[in-house]
Amino acid sequence: MRVAVYPGSFDPVTNGHLDIIKRSAKLFDKVIVAVLNNTSKNPIFTTRERVDMLREVTESLGNVEVDSFEGLLIDYMVENDIKLIVKGLRAISDFEAEFQMALMNRKLSSDVETVFMMTHSEYSYLSSSLVKEVFRFGGNITDFVPPEVVIRLNDKIGGDK
Amino acid sequence: MRVAVYPGSFDPVTNGHLDIIKRSAKLFDKVIVAVLNNTSKNPIFTTRERVDMLREVTESLGNVEVDSFEGLLIDYMVENDIKLIVKGLRAISDFEAEFQMALMNRKLSSDVETVFMMTHSEYSYLSSSLVKEVFRFGGNITDFVPPEVVIRLNDKIGGDK
Amino acid sequence: MRVAVYPGSFDPVTNGHLDIIKRSAKLFDKVIVAVLNNTSKNPIFTTRERVDMLREVTESLGNVEVDSFEGLLIDYMVENDIKLIVKGLRAISDFEAEFQMALMNRKLSSDVETVFMMTHSEYSYLSSSLVKEVFRFGGNITDFVPPEVVIRLNDKIGGDK
Amino acid sequence: MRVAVYPGSFDPVTNGHLDIIKRSAKLFDKVIVAVLNNTSKNPIFTTRERVDMLREVTESLGNVEVDSFEGLLIDYMVENDIKLIVKGLRAISDFEAEFQMALMNRKLSSDVETVFMMTHSEYSYLSSSLVKEVFRFGGNITDFVPPEVVIRLNDKIGGDK
Amino acid sequence: MRVAVYPGSFDPVTNGHLDIIKRSAKLFDKVIVAVLNNTSKNPIFTTRERVDMLREVTESLGNVEVDSFEGLLIDYMVENDIKLIVKGLRAISDFEAEFQMALMNRKLSSDVETVFMMTHSEYSYLSSSLVKEVFRFGGNITDFVPPEVVIRLNDKIGGDK
Amino acid sequence: MRVAVYPGSFDPVTNGHLDIIKRSAKLFDKVIVAVLNNTSKNPIFTTRERVDMLREVTESLGNVEVDSFEGLLIDYMVENDIKLIVKGLRAISDFEAEFQMALMNRKLSSDVETVFMMTHSEYSYLSSSLVKEVFRFGGNITDFVPPEVVIRLNDKIGGDK
Repeated sequence: MRVAVYPGSFDPVTNGHLDIIKRSAKLFDKVIVAVLNNTSKNPIFTTRERVDMLREVTESLGNVEVDSFEGLLIDYMVENDIKLIVKGLRAISDFEAEFQMALMNRKLSSDVETVFMMTHSEYSYLSSSLVKEVFRFGGNITDFVPPEVVIRLNDKIGGDK
Repeated sequence: MRVAVYPGSFDPVTNGHLDIIKRSAKLFDKVIVAVLNNTSKNPIFTTRERVDMLREVTESLGNVEVDSFEGLLIDYMVENDIKLIVKGLRAISDFEAEFQMALMNRKLSSDVETVFMMTHSEYSYLSSSLVKEVFRFGGNITDFVPPEVVIRLNDKIGGDK
Repeated sequence: MRVAVYPGSFDPVTNGHLDIIKRSAKLFDKVIVAVLNNTSKNPIFTTRERVDMLREVTESLGNVEVDSFEGLLIDYMVENDIKLIVKGLRAISDFEAEFQMALMNRKLSSDVETVFMMTHSEYSYLSSSLVKEVFRFGGNITDFVPPEVVIRLNDKIGGDK
Repeated sequence: MRVAVYPGSFDPVTNGHLDIIKRSAKLFDKVIVAVLNNTSKNPIFTTRERVDMLREVTESLGNVEVDSFEGLLIDYMVENDIKLIVKGLRAISDFEAEFQMALMNRKLSSDVETVFMMTHSEYSYLSSSLVKEVFRFGGNITDFVPPEVVIRLNDKIGGDK
Repeated sequence: MRVAVYPGSFDPVTNGHLDIIKRSAKLFDKVIVAVLNNTSKNPIFTTRERVDMLREVTESLGNVEVDSFEGLLIDYMVENDIKLIVKGLRAISDFEAEFQMALMNRKLSSDVETVFMMTHSEYSYLSSSLVKEVFRFGGNITDFVPPEVVIRLNDKIGGDK
Repeated sequence: MRVAVYPGSFDPVTNGHLDIIKRSAKLFDKVIVAVLNNTSKNPIFTTRERVDMLREVTESLGNVEVDSFEGLLIDYMVENDIKLIVKGLRAISDFEAEFQMALMNRKLSSDVETVFMMTHSEYSYLSSSLVKEVFRFGGNITDFVPPEVVIRLNDKIGGDK
């Protein structure tokens, strides 16, 4: 059974993330969405909330699980005997940073493989931080995140729309 | 009448910014330099001071106005019925970030257009933050910013030169 | 009156080109689409045919004209007293080449300005040469070029679809 | 069963290609190496020879097959009911071109997916054309291509080493 | 005598830095490794400690000296009558930032020259901050930094391995 | 004695090349400008003519020599016991290609080092092929190449200016 991990902060999950989750779920037997417990970055949502949101929006995908991890991704993978990382690519800057991270991970554990999938061009401008900025100033984010996330963001921060 | 907005932090305005302002003023009927009121970024100058400096250095340009805005640029544009954004491009990293922002703005308001102008190669190394760093350590910044800004920086922070 | 030139080979014009033409026509008083008479590149269509196709597909745009030129763009601009070039940007490699060309043009004539517009992300994969390759092997190109161009390509090369 | 196609010219196959073939063979149930029959590019080896070399160097890989195709990759995939393309990425310029091609393929057939794998950094400088250039001038290519290819190149062109 | 300065934060020095130091020491008569006293960036090691570590790991290199500086690199160079900066390049993002800095330095002092050397591909994924992140979570960093640095990091932060 | 080779086609030498030659001549004891005898690229000038032009324009530089080579640069370097290559960098696309070439050269001969120098921003748009294109269509190239080259180009091709 081929299991892939799709790691990230998901603060919150966007339609771009969801696109990668759905498409990677077709390629591998199981995809584990792994939420990084990164308290140092002052996320809006707790790790627990981010995991819950991801579970809600991936509920219909039978071979997708959601989990969280702390520390190094590579340790999480070794502990769970996973060999494969999936990453979404949007643009050059993504590519450079992801390439560096993938080389580091390969160095830390030589049998770990990273595969990159192209984010749909419709979502190429999307990022969690842009979504949060638009939301904070009352912009309409219904095209950028799943409906469950809009509700959660309203509960959490409030907003004009 | 074709009106363009040239948005930015301008903390402070550099000769590179001024170059784009002058050249865009030739292309459009009116150019509004819009200072982002971004208190979260700990600017050196208040929004008011940045607006004042920009007014001083663009005084001779008949079709340039200076304004400030809070929140999303796109909201400012809708409120003022402006359809056109002008941005200066220096290098690859600029290009990627600006492209992403322009796609987001187009998504938020489909009739908004972004045009990019090349920063003069003489100013390709310039940025407000580099200017501030050079100034803080007593470096000579007279080639990088208009004279009005040198005076203001001396008043604000002081410096050795 | 602000006149812009949109230069290119247009062998043939694609929906990506047409997108830039339409959007630049909103920004400037007149847009001249200028077909480069580049016989050395072995174009499929003659300059005359490329001009004709462009006229057909821009017929409804009142302030768009189509012309052709030989030699240096900058000479064409000086002769016709045009100061402004419009270029579409798709990706990094575009950006680099266009930037270099724009700097050269500015050097050859200091009062010439180049503005860049973002190609719609829907067309970011499109190029005349990709269209020709897809067509040659019988692929469906109706999403990539205006209907007039499909007809012309069928007349010119023939094709399976 | 998940089948992936790894397309290319392979004129000749390098150690960098072989690295991607081996690693992708671990990720998918079957990998079909598909040689593009591109006579217009004046390859050194005929399509037949390139297929033979690939068969020799992938002999020990049980789930790798070698095939050739003419025309559009997407047509080959539709005919053989394959949904997945694997590509190796070395650097920025690769990335841009591959991204454009992947978007075009997705447009031509919406259920086709492209996944990218990182070429091992040890092979990041390698390309078939560099190998041919080094070989032509008598350079040592034993670190760049499998031994079978060195023999074939010697038979084909001859060389000093 | 040709003297070059190799500036950086070195918090801590990595095998990638050491590779550039060794190779630049072959090219120039003297190489001064200059540690930036950047207290604002909250380094793990004090400037003194970073200088000491660099002296330990470069002890066998006869023409390498280690020093520290505050403020602008260009001022340090003028005071010490050095005309040459050496920088290591890993990737695109490095290149852009370094290019901008080099242009600024050339502007601040026209007779200063920057030369770039390629970081060995084996170290292309390495950075001080990645090393610190891996170490903090108990990862094995013995391939990334000299042994002296592992000892210092253990003394400073502690760690699981 | 530190000897560097500065290789290229130089068809013809531009002011950008000359800038790199002058600045590298300050850094190393001797700089050998090495003209690639690349008949396959259909150069305008013969190798002999390119060598002669380079000798004319570097006459005043005491430690610069001009030579030509055929085949692999690395063979030329081994034969002449040179360990150092100097390359000029203008932009991203340069960087990628040069990086790949430098890695290949390091692989072919492990003690060869490549150092990169930044082309002056004034010349960042310059290339031999752009100069030839401008000249062919009668454009003014006196700012792009040394006077000796203008004369030679007039003799060779003729031109309107």
